[in-house]
Amino acid sequence: MRTPVGVFDSGFGGLSVLRELRRVLPQVDYTYLGDSGRAPYGGRDLDTVLDFAEQCVERLFAEGCRVIVVACHTVSCVALRHLQTRYAASEQRVLGVTIPAAEAAVAQTRGHIGFIGTARTVASHTFRTETAKLAPSVRVSEVAAPLLAPIVEEGWEQTEIARLAVERYVAQLDGIDTLVLGCTHYPLLRATFAQCVPSDVHVLDPAAFVAQRFADWLARHPEFAPATGGKLRVLSSGDTARFARHAARFLGEEPPPIERVAEFRGRLTFASEENEPSGQFVRA
Amino acid sequence: MRTPVGVFDSGFGGLSVLRELRRVLPQVDYTYLGDSGRAPYGGRDLDTVLDFAEQCVERLFAEGCRVIVVACHTVSCVALRHLQTRYAASEQRVLGVTIPAAEAAVAQTRGHIGFIGTARTVASHTFRTETAKLAPSVRVSEVAAPLLAPIVEEGWEQTEIARLAVERYVAQLDGIDTLVLGCTHYPLLRATFAQCVPSDVHVLDPAAFVAQRFADWLARHPEFAPATGGKLRVLSSGDTARFARHAARFLGEEPPPIERVAEFRGRLTFASEENEPSGQFVRA
Repeated sequence: MRTPVGVFDSGFGGLSVLRELRRVLPQVDYTYLGDSGRAPYGGRDLDTVLDFAEQCVERLFAEGCRVIVVACHTVSCVALRHLQTRYAASEQRVLGVTIPAAEAAVAQTRGHIGFIGTARTVASHTFRTETAKLAPSVRVSEVAAPLLAPIVEEGWEQTEIARLAVERYVAQLDGIDTLVLGCTHYPLLRATFAQCVPSDVHVLDPAAFVAQRFADWLARHPEFAPATGGKLRVLSSGDTARFARHAARFLGEEPPPIERVAEFRGRLTFASEENEPSGQFVRA
Repeated sequence: MRTPVGVFDSGFGGLSVLRELRRVLPQVDYTYLGDSGRAPYGGRDLDTVLDFAEQCVERLFAEGCRVIVVACHTVSCVALRHLQTRYAASEQRVLGVTIPAAEAAVAQTRGHIGFIGTARTVASHTFRTETAKLAPSVRVSEVAAPLLAPIVEEGWEQTEIARLAVERYVAQLDGIDTLVLGCTHYPLLRATFAQCVPSDVHVLDPAAFVAQRFADWLARHPEFAPATGGKLRVLSSGDTARFARHAARFLGEEPPPIERVAEFRGRLTFASEENEPSGQFVRA
């Protein structure tokens, strides 16, 4: 039974990971779910992140996916083990981005890795933990950058505002030789990061490595060989018009029409596209 | 039965409203609830905002409050009527900030009001609707500023980043004579706003007017006369240490020890203060 690969992110940032997956494995069918109606996850309570992650993964299972790549670093860092434990008995697999990111950074570093991500991602220290397992002598410095994802969501990544914010966050990372972009929004700020770090610091977007490691995983697990044909579906829990506007910037190509899902009794289900009413909103 | 006045906000921003309430009515007892664990509300789905607003209001009712001031513009703009309808039969009252803000702006304007707030607040057009009821000939221009509350939450309101962001948003409001700060975070950017608008534009923080109108309301409703003694309690659904760090900036004085509440089965209840675990988090 060949089915699409599921890709899940809290919003449209994960489309920058999907882009690399489609570059490395263009023939594969993908179903992407962006929980943009409830993004960002980065500042949320752990329990809420777990609950949302379950809903998203189960929606993708319901769409027939048997393998899901969690593109979101926040979810990968705090909820991946929960998801893997919860669905361990099933014929389904949930993979993350943190271990591939640590592997890529360890392969690259001369001894001191900088890691930048959301507040929740950094508070988990999961990237540091995974790096220490691979290379105990490598130093990891982490910085939380709560403003960067919102700046990218505003479409302001080319502004002086973006440059000053990146500069301010990066200044907290002294003496690093490799800087890991630990949020799927940050690849759109890659040029700005490169501008703000010393010229001998390598700026690493783990997405390409995540895609390569996923291709390796598929080769080792032929029983999970996905459907092919290069088909792409994109689901969003938020405003689909807004999602479509942003999607091309992250995906590097025009997305298909966005399908809308919404939470109903704690589960994500398809919902008709309707304009949300303006003004006061009274619920029975 | 005299009880504290409840003040509710999505986070600590509403402490800038509480500050004005305590200035105008210093003898009153207040219980403040900041839902900072789930803030910001500004980009959220309507259904989620309604659900969170109900939980917060019901928590304050459970604390004995009979009158609640919704300090948050997002909640006031989209959920106030829902809250008033839901609790209409009870001996409790829920008041908002949008009508006082519109009254203050109409009293001030020479014909063209600018209004700046969160995405959800602006999408509701509730401020415009309320202004039109008071003064149909007054023009209202609105702009959504999703980045400003996060900038204030970072403590970056004195930076060039804040100035450039305010400048960019304000540039979208042409020919206004009054600018209404439609989010409880923005008073901390007041000097920056004043710098970025032409000198003949009046920058209006409605909080003082909200406090005055609340005092008038209490005078008209002696049956809701609150408990006095000047006592203050502060409840937060988020990280209480972080809340305490920010609170003084908004409140203009040191807050009392912050009491922590958390969501349990869809309701906010008191929760022991504990550090959230780092690393992977597995829920049974």
